[in-house]
Amino acid sequence: MVDAAHIRKVFQRYVELLTDGDYEAIATLYAEDGTVEDPIGSPVHAGRDAIREFYKASAGATRLELSGPVRVAGVEAAAPMVATPRTDGPPVYIDTLDAMVFGDDGLIESMRAYWSADTIRRD
Amino acid sequence: MVDAAHIRKVFQRYVELLTDGDYEAIATLYAEDGTVEDPIGSPVHAGRDAIREFYKASAGATRLELSGPVRVAGVEAAAPMVATPRTDGPPVYIDTLDAMVFGDDGLIESMRAYWSADTIRRD
Repeated sequence: MVDAAHIRKVFQRYVELLTDGDYEAIATLYAEDGTVEDPIGSPVHAGRDAIREFYKASAGATRLELSGPVRVAGVEAAAPMVATPRTDGPPVYIDTLDAMVFGDDGLIESMRAYWSADTIRRD
Repeated sequence: MVDAAHIRKVFQRYVELLTDGDYEAIATLYAEDGTVEDPIGSPVHAGRDAIREFYKASAGATRLELSGPVRVAGVEAAAPMVATPRTDGPPVYIDTLDAMVFGDDGLIESMRAYWSADTIRRD
């Protein structure tokens, strides 16, 4: 079974790659039949190709950082994050939180992101 | 539909009631057919009676606090927390994170807690 250290490393790599806008590398973190629901309630992107397109569409638009430890529970894990969209205007911060399920191969089988208009703040 | 302000209030009340050990009041936050999986991977407690018994078994044993904002996404929400078991020995901290789904009536339909031996720390 996938171990906690690996899962924590994937979360760290995920936020770095998203900040860098490296959508090709992000897609390789996911299983071929992985799914992304970001934010929760929006249409699910299913399969690595759809996932790549999803991240490509917003590549480099946002800085993403962990804002607390990754909580690993077996093959599932979740972590609080803060997303800062790159903008010329006044800064905006989005409190988000990603929950992931991992396969035995260490790839992400599903990711669901908890954020909405309610979690956006100005300072 | 249940609004974000209500959901944030339930999370705050939940951590306070758990800290107080008020398992009767905690049970009333849940729907009659609500479920609890705490931690993820352990047996699910289904129904308000089973949920009450679950919280009764550990009533007052732990101080629970939010360690970041509640992320609300529609009828779902999640928040990082720190649990501090009351002990006579050296302090122990558990980084946990609860994800909840709400019904239209504002009651919790399901709660899943992300923590494990991996998320326990000494300082």
